[in-house]
Amino acid sequence: MASIRVALVGASGYTGAELLRLLLSHPDVELTLLCAHKSAGQRIDALFPQLTGRLSTVVEPYDGARVARDADVAFVALPHGESGRVAGELYRLGMRLVLDLSGDLRISDPAICREWYGHADEALLAEAVYGLPELGRARLDRARLIAVPGCYPTASILALFALLEAKLVAPAPLIVDAKSGVSGAGRTPALSSHLPEAGEGVRAYKVAGTHRHTPEIEQALGLAAGTAVRVSFSPHLLPMSRGILATAYAVPTDPSRKTEDYLRLLRERFTGEPFVRVVEHPPDTAHVRGSNLVHLGVAADRRAGLVVAMTALDNLVKGASGQAIQCMNRALGLPEAAGLGGSPMFP
Amino acid sequence: MASIRVALVGASGYTGAELLRLLLSHPDVELTLLCAHKSAGQRIDALFPQLTGRLSTVVEPYDGARVARDADVAFVALPHGESGRVAGELYRLGMRLVLDLSGDLRISDPAICREWYGHADEALLAEAVYGLPELGRARLDRARLIAVPGCYPTASILALFALLEAKLVAPAPLIVDAKSGVSGAGRTPALSSHLPEAGEGVRAYKVAGTHRHTPEIEQALGLAAGTAVRVSFSPHLLPMSRGILATAYAVPTDPSRKTEDYLRLLRERFTGEPFVRVVEHPPDTAHVRGSNLVHLGVAADRRAGLVVAMTALDNLVKGASGQAIQCMNRALGLPEAAGLGGSPMFP
Amino acid sequence: MASIRVALVGASGYTGAELLRLLLSHPDVELTLLCAHKSAGQRIDALFPQLTGRLSTVVEPYDGARVARDADVAFVALPHGESGRVAGELYRLGMRLVLDLSGDLRISDPAICREWYGHADEALLAEAVYGLPELGRARLDRARLIAVPGCYPTASILALFALLEAKLVAPAPLIVDAKSGVSGAGRTPALSSHLPEAGEGVRAYKVAGTHRHTPEIEQALGLAAGTAVRVSFSPHLLPMSRGILATAYAVPTDPSRKTEDYLRLLRERFTGEPFVRVVEHPPDTAHVRGSNLVHLGVAADRRAGLVVAMTALDNLVKGASGQAIQCMNRALGLPEAAGLGGSPMFP
Amino acid sequence: MASIRVALVGASGYTGAELLRLLLSHPDVELTLLCAHKSAGQRIDALFPQLTGRLSTVVEPYDGARVARDADVAFVALPHGESGRVAGELYRLGMRLVLDLSGDLRISDPAICREWYGHADEALLAEAVYGLPELGRARLDRARLIAVPGCYPTASILALFALLEAKLVAPAPLIVDAKSGVSGAGRTPALSSHLPEAGEGVRAYKVAGTHRHTPEIEQALGLAAGTAVRVSFSPHLLPMSRGILATAYAVPTDPSRKTEDYLRLLRERFTGEPFVRVVEHPPDTAHVRGSNLVHLGVAADRRAGLVVAMTALDNLVKGASGQAIQCMNRALGLPEAAGLGGSPMFP
Repeated sequence: MASIRVALVGASGYTGAELLRLLLSHPDVELTLLCAHKSAGQRIDALFPQLTGRLSTVVEPYDGARVARDADVAFVALPHGESGRVAGELYRLGMRLVLDLSGDLRISDPAICREWYGHADEALLAEAVYGLPELGRARLDRARLIAVPGCYPTASILALFALLEAKLVAPAPLIVDAKSGVSGAGRTPALSSHLPEAGEGVRAYKVAGTHRHTPEIEQALGLAAGTAVRVSFSPHLLPMSRGILATAYAVPTDPSRKTEDYLRLLRERFTGEPFVRVVEHPPDTAHVRGSNLVHLGVAADRRAGLVVAMTALDNLVKGASGQAIQCMNRALGLPEAAGLGGSPMFP
Repeated sequence: MASIRVALVGASGYTGAELLRLLLSHPDVELTLLCAHKSAGQRIDALFPQLTGRLSTVVEPYDGARVARDADVAFVALPHGESGRVAGELYRLGMRLVLDLSGDLRISDPAICREWYGHADEALLAEAVYGLPELGRARLDRARLIAVPGCYPTASILALFALLEAKLVAPAPLIVDAKSGVSGAGRTPALSSHLPEAGEGVRAYKVAGTHRHTPEIEQALGLAAGTAVRVSFSPHLLPMSRGILATAYAVPTDPSRKTEDYLRLLRERFTGEPFVRVVEHPPDTAHVRGSNLVHLGVAADRRAGLVVAMTALDNLVKGASGQAIQCMNRALGLPEAAGLGGSPMFP
Repeated sequence: MASIRVALVGASGYTGAELLRLLLSHPDVELTLLCAHKSAGQRIDALFPQLTGRLSTVVEPYDGARVARDADVAFVALPHGESGRVAGELYRLGMRLVLDLSGDLRISDPAICREWYGHADEALLAEAVYGLPELGRARLDRARLIAVPGCYPTASILALFALLEAKLVAPAPLIVDAKSGVSGAGRTPALSSHLPEAGEGVRAYKVAGTHRHTPEIEQALGLAAGTAVRVSFSPHLLPMSRGILATAYAVPTDPSRKTEDYLRLLRERFTGEPFVRVVEHPPDTAHVRGSNLVHLGVAADRRAGLVVAMTALDNLVKGASGQAIQCMNRALGLPEAAGLGGSPMFP
Repeated sequence: MASIRVALVGASGYTGAELLRLLLSHPDVELTLLCAHKSAGQRIDALFPQLTGRLSTVVEPYDGARVARDADVAFVALPHGESGRVAGELYRLGMRLVLDLSGDLRISDPAICREWYGHADEALLAEAVYGLPELGRARLDRARLIAVPGCYPTASILALFALLEAKLVAPAPLIVDAKSGVSGAGRTPALSSHLPEAGEGVRAYKVAGTHRHTPEIEQALGLAAGTAVRVSFSPHLLPMSRGILATAYAVPTDPSRKTEDYLRLLRERFTGEPFVRVVEHPPDTAHVRGSNLVHLGVAADRRAGLVVAMTALDNLVKGASGQAIQCMNRALGLPEAAGLGGSPMFP
């Protein structure tokens, strides 16, 4: 089979770098175009010295017509707002497949999208397929526009949706306490990612349901629960680079169920999933680093009448670039794990 | 005033080292005896090179009669089980003040103590005063045996007790998601604190109410709530040395209250407290490191109907050694902040 | 071509884990046997949870005859002393290829080997080929016993040998100041790798030519210089998991040469090398992490009359397991980079 | 004695924050004025939340006349170039004591100062006293203008000057391989201090005698050696916040001397020094963190004919703010260690 020609729009951030790392090992893909704004004109290995001797393409300014001509598939990894707009343009130019890694196209209800993002392209929202294969992959087959969920929604949804779907936990209250490495905040230096201040300390931010990813988590969990839900989502910034752990708390519908009962349900629900592993011990982000894997754990707190579900994943892989490639594989009819077979880097 | 003669039993761990650091700057104290088991015979600055040129005392094997003779006050920082036994012995030898930093004497109900710790010296439990000054300091005045709470209970209790006491949150469900640096696990090397495995990753352990500090948290919060409570407590290990952040979730009794309402209550409740600071932004452990300070934050999640309360403290200071000194100061009639005035080390 | 059957003796350490990670992606290899002592009887994914769902082989106790029967190639990654002995046994059992990752067989002069290691199997030392392909790969072709150099020698030798070989620097003094992540010290917990003590601090150890890898570095650099040399080697432990940076200092033979002159020599010398990249800026271990790459830099200090050469590599890949696989590929006539094509993980 | 009124010009960086931490515990000092540019108008505890409840002074824009009126002593911690100019202005306004923490006034030879810094106020350079008490403290007594050396010069000079002074090592070659935490680069966010890129990796920068602190090190070591010297200085950035380790290499004048001989000299030379500790094991920055202490080690490499000297200190304390206070104490006739008695924070 001829290689699939791939363009990357937004090549200068961590999501872009991780797409490059993974796509360079993908057997069916050829990188034909790298685009970015501020970095246009620079060689990609000047931006990312880890690519020295491997990729020396010069980054181009974005030009939609050129992308559509030179590539079959475009990954768009630009800042929120701009990303969805560019993805829409490329989609309308008739590309075979466009994958948007921002949050712009993930909220299907235009009113909610407008409330949290300040914009809503209704036609585009109606076209975009939500790219979390574990929620149902049939809709990804032959999709042409995919909104790829990011790290917080992926971790939060995977922690809870199977339990809600099976009605093992009640739809309220739902609490997600998420812990993230700072690479999730991107490559732009800021005091909150400045090593002397972020290197030994932990804090929450945008707590109590004020983070923009809250409605996206609610959208997916509401579908699973069969009813609208509210999630109290509180992200925390940890002194590490990669990895995200979501610890979710919910109330069991039957308080007599034991940890083993929940584990059994999760094992059944995720049988055959190429990347989800149900683990007996609390999952550790160090065990999935650099891979597209998800480690999923659960425990019954029968004393307090709660269920604790935990997801560990790599925010830049299953939480971004790896997931996008998984979606691409599915949409193009490739093996779903193509190019994603690498084992975690441990230690 | 003549110096208070202080003995330290259990000098070779991190809690011991931190007691030494703080007591060396205490204006009213003289260190007369350092005891430990395995390290007996070694110079303290061989065990802790940071003390080179500052303290060269040889560590002695523990001998209760000698401690009681050579010191007025004893800090006991031994492993659980042994610590309470030694503290009891020194107390019965008539020392002016004994402070136990273990969990052995913190549970006042012997049945619960026995269930979680496998032992209960009922007479001793009845004598021991719980050493969290913010819960009420009158009982510390002239106390002779103090059970000093550790990092998890201190952080968890301070997050929630004022809200429960004022009936701003309901007594169920109560959830504490705690994030700790690995120094809390002590100085004995283990795979869980081995830098290659712990240096970039996060995971929960003893989740869902199985951690031994759960009943201690419930005891204090039950008193505040005026009714028995259950807490779903889940500790997490973070890739850092010091610091603990407790993020607590509870249901408001009046869902219309705003963040500012909770802040106002906390500011009033903690007025005059020498070490508690109510902060408007989510607290950061990096802002209290090395000090006895507690940063306390709160936020109303009115969408989801929850209150999020957060405590940041240094697990080795306010979560152990600093708190013990604060208790000593109070019991001996010294200024409560004596020797604890140092500012946090930032960055 | 039928898969090469590979056994791994010493599967429970970091070198073993990294061999597993890399070999699982090697197109020509089949893992047929995993051996270890203390871990025998356990599943490999219990020892290394990152392998969950990927490899569940039960670790076997070592049995030479069985290894020789069930595998064509054996990687031996046991502690020094034992490793060379086992490698010798397997070699004498007639295996097609044995690769020893310890230092036991790397010193070809039995007297020096005895002095630093306390043993010397003269016949075996005479058979063992030193596995640093950049020094000359012809001797690796069809080799049956390869002594694979570790992280410190690889980094130190690659920094200096080309400069010595071309007589751009004098053979004395030669100084190597090496900085290593703590994974180099292995998986056994110790105070020196205990996160609270190793997580924020730096120190030298075994300074001033007392480290066991000193004579190995001298052996290779002496061959390059055409005369016996002494190297002042001082390793340092850094607060990170992976990566090694060697900063080497030597005196130029012609003090008028500029940085560009040295860069030109290095570029020429390493033309065609699959893993060595000569870089213009000081190399950073973060740019090679997880890969078999070496970044090599050099600078002339004409004010002080010195040349500074720097090597960055991943101590577990090019400094151990990746290098071993590179040697295996060469010895078996496979493409030298087979299974080693992954890009660095950055960030 | 009435308190000394102290102004801090440049309050918003890490050096300023550390001056605040230390001066708040100084028994003889009253902070009367905090000045900064961009942060003027903000409360200091908004800039530095660790000061919440401790110091709420509003930062003022700099006004020389006001500083001279409201304070007896000024610490100037501004960026290079500006700092020396402001210090000179305050000195000429007749303040009792001005301490400049930048490099502007540290080079006494105007030609060299001009070459490396692009400016030289000859009259001021002639007045400024170099503030490294261990080099000789008599000149600090009653000094009115002190140029306080920073972290790299302090660590480098303390490693070598006593050995040069005693002629135990030759004046060439002199090599300093310095390893620094990233707080030394200040509080302004940059990619080189961005946690995802700096948190797990090591690299050199401004190698081979191109760093601006090189001539300052040479100036002090030249005085010690009694002859002009050249130092090959290569700084490295480490994945940690605080701490600096200088590993220095020199050639012994008598190759038969042993480690113990060098230790004896250092112990004698530094007898009575309040902050220097000569240690037998290689010094560790983790053992001096947060304190004004210097740990100094040395080892003879008799095989290779070199001496390795090592200094560990906290770059923000003995490498900046603590040293400035030590100088102030001396200049004002206070006990030299006043306000600097805190023990290191370990772990």
